[in-house]
Amino acid sequence: MRGHEPPTMIAEIIAAGSEMLTPHRQDTNSLFLTAQLNDLGVEVAFKTIVGDNLDHLTGAARTALARADIVIFSGGLGPTEDDLTREAAAAALGLSLQRDATILAGLYKRFAARQMTMPPNNAKQADVLEGATILTNPNGSAPGQLLDTVVDGYRKIVILLPGPPREIKPLFEEVVKPLLASTLPPRYLARRILRMPLIPESHVDARTSPIYREYTDVQTTILAGHGEIQLHFTSAKTTLFEAQARVDELTSRIEAEMQDAIFSSQGESLEEVVLLMLEMRHLTLAAAESCTGGLLAQRLTAVPNSSRAFVGGAVVYTPELKTLFADVPEETIKIHGAVSPEVARALAEGIRERTGASLGISITGLAGPSGGPPGPDSEKPIGRIYLGLADNRETRIKELNLNGDRDYIRWWASQHALELIRQTLL
Amino acid sequence: MRGHEPPTMIAEIIAAGSEMLTPHRQDTNSLFLTAQLNDLGVEVAFKTIVGDNLDHLTGAARTALARADIVIFSGGLGPTEDDLTREAAAAALGLSLQRDATILAGLYKRFAARQMTMPPNNAKQADVLEGATILTNPNGSAPGQLLDTVVDGYRKIVILLPGPPREIKPLFEEVVKPLLASTLPPRYLARRILRMPLIPESHVDARTSPIYREYTDVQTTILAGHGEIQLHFTSAKTTLFEAQARVDELTSRIEAEMQDAIFSSQGESLEEVVLLMLEMRHLTLAAAESCTGGLLAQRLTAVPNSSRAFVGGAVVYTPELKTLFADVPEETIKIHGAVSPEVARALAEGIRERTGASLGISITGLAGPSGGPPGPDSEKPIGRIYLGLADNRETRIKELNLNGDRDYIRWWASQHALELIRQTLL
Repeated sequence: MRGHEPPTMIAEIIAAGSEMLTPHRQDTNSLFLTAQLNDLGVEVAFKTIVGDNLDHLTGAARTALARADIVIFSGGLGPTEDDLTREAAAAALGLSLQRDATILAGLYKRFAARQMTMPPNNAKQADVLEGATILTNPNGSAPGQLLDTVVDGYRKIVILLPGPPREIKPLFEEVVKPLLASTLPPRYLARRILRMPLIPESHVDARTSPIYREYTDVQTTILAGHGEIQLHFTSAKTTLFEAQARVDELTSRIEAEMQDAIFSSQGESLEEVVLLMLEMRHLTLAAAESCTGGLLAQRLTAVPNSSRAFVGGAVVYTPELKTLFADVPEETIKIHGAVSPEVARALAEGIRERTGASLGISITGLAGPSGGPPGPDSEKPIGRIYLGLADNRETRIKELNLNGDRDYIRWWASQHALELIRQTLL
Repeated sequence: MRGHEPPTMIAEIIAAGSEMLTPHRQDTNSLFLTAQLNDLGVEVAFKTIVGDNLDHLTGAARTALARADIVIFSGGLGPTEDDLTREAAAAALGLSLQRDATILAGLYKRFAARQMTMPPNNAKQADVLEGATILTNPNGSAPGQLLDTVVDGYRKIVILLPGPPREIKPLFEEVVKPLLASTLPPRYLARRILRMPLIPESHVDARTSPIYREYTDVQTTILAGHGEIQLHFTSAKTTLFEAQARVDELTSRIEAEMQDAIFSSQGESLEEVVLLMLEMRHLTLAAAESCTGGLLAQRLTAVPNSSRAFVGGAVVYTPELKTLFADVPEETIKIHGAVSPEVARALAEGIRERTGASLGISITGLAGPSGGPPGPDSEKPIGRIYLGLADNRETRIKELNLNGDRDYIRWWASQHALELIRQTLL
């Protein structure tokens, strides 16, 4: 059963603000807005970023009205001279702005509550497009606006929203989304995400594309990066039930194909999955890190309540600290070098015994950019990493040879360490 | 001396690719391109993101040609049906595409070198806009193109570039930038960045704006985030000497005003500055981290050659590990709780003595979202952090009360720890 595929409305997002035309700042609201619009079955076809310039902004608004059904502005609703979104939208639509008495009273009240006199320029925040619905903004002074109108014979929905994320997010979720849901043709989107660590994208694609290609009514996106592959499945139908059934069916078939390579089918991170597995098995973990310098511990402790399974460990950046905190024999380091399976083993076993944790994980290697110190490590290539994982019966050792810069090598080493724990616990 | 301010050309960047219209991917090339264009004195006035759709892309190209002097496309130059940038640019300019024999021969050679037969669709990568200069791309199969032409009486420069960052970056820097520099009116941009930690933006602005407002020919941007304020100064002149002199003069005056609050005037990170200060003073550092769980160590060890000053330390996430690795008396934790000045002191002193480092830094606190465990920590608020910094004479203690989520509290705690070290070393 393919179900009905409803008509699509397309949206354009216009982000207003000169700071987003510098090398330092990016529009990020559009990612949030796109996810929200997709939930409503609306696709984003254009995103425009434009500075605080009335001509530029008005022109961008005209262009958007000509090519999209829904035009959403973010930013430019504040009280300053640079806040020009209201004026630009009015000019592009050929409408006037009308000062709203209720909003104006609210602005005066806001200032009075802080025992301040309202500067006159703030009054422009009460200017509303003729016929627009006012979207009350509980987190800022400028309300949003929504105008459902007809331009040159076509229905157009124009939405003005504030720029700060802490204002636009609740305003969209709590006010705009229900409003749009009640007025747009019913179109429901279901979504599932499968996550896999440390597999080449081409392998995943070769194994899964014969399956997902059968589902022409499910959109499949493969995202690769940071030592992880994500498969995103989305389907739009006139009912949520139909849409969910399609993505769930495809997800089940991909899970059957990829099996244990998948660590998460509900969005959890690899750290969260590892901590959950440890907790369910009543196990604890300690870490001894050399080249990753605390990155693994940091990733684990970024998860709330990680202390239920992770006890901590040591950052053993020098040979002396490897001996001091994980009882690695000085001789072992002297003979084999710090970057060796022998030291990885001694570190994992040592940190486990010292801390009394059920499992000890170790990472030692060369992250670059300079090579190993004189001695046994001097000939080893940058990117050579050894992992050790000790439990009460045995110690697993894994050699990695990574290519990339220091950040890349450190991240992938921590990713491999998490995956080694996961595979061992499976 | 204000110097001459040359005329500005404005650019539009069009990023082509449907993946950038999902909630998961963002156009990032435009940040790089903006920095490069600014170097040439060109300002970016619009950025458009458009999917792999010939009508949409052609329309976006027409709009851009009407409102910008320089139009740069990134992406859509590959061999697939979804790669439509060449066709869209040609349609918008009213030009034909001509298959270039040299590029075609190169494509055949590329495939032959891998002992593969070239699929016929690859030939379209040899299609060139009439009159365009071919920009040889050493890192990919699709070359770029640059057309310097006149549209409706105005000079327009149209540049087609590949999407992958590893292709577009060297191609722009090595080929496009020198080409543009030789043909655009001379306009040189000088830039300086001052960085300050942990000061409210409003304080920085109140103290510096009377100075930077005098410099109407220097653009000042204040960026705030991650526990840091950055002041960016840029000036455009017909000679680099004039531009540099203006930003250097302003920078000196701001440095005189803000003094030691500034940790970097050449772009170094706070971690780098702290490590450099330690190294210059022949000092070493060890860290004992509780709530930050390795974040401070991770930040320090992300800097190449950090082992010259940072020896490592311990992630003491449980009470037991605080005693085990930093000799914090069990009694101290029982009486005062782990989140206390007493434990911060014992941790800092303990990790210093254990490791033999010159300085010991400690971080202990409540990062949330759940509060402290039963006992003395149960009443302490989330965001309460204690830092300790021990040297051979004394131990400094600092109490922080941070507001925000777990990630925010952990980051700011690590930022305060770095700043405590820097202030102590000054």
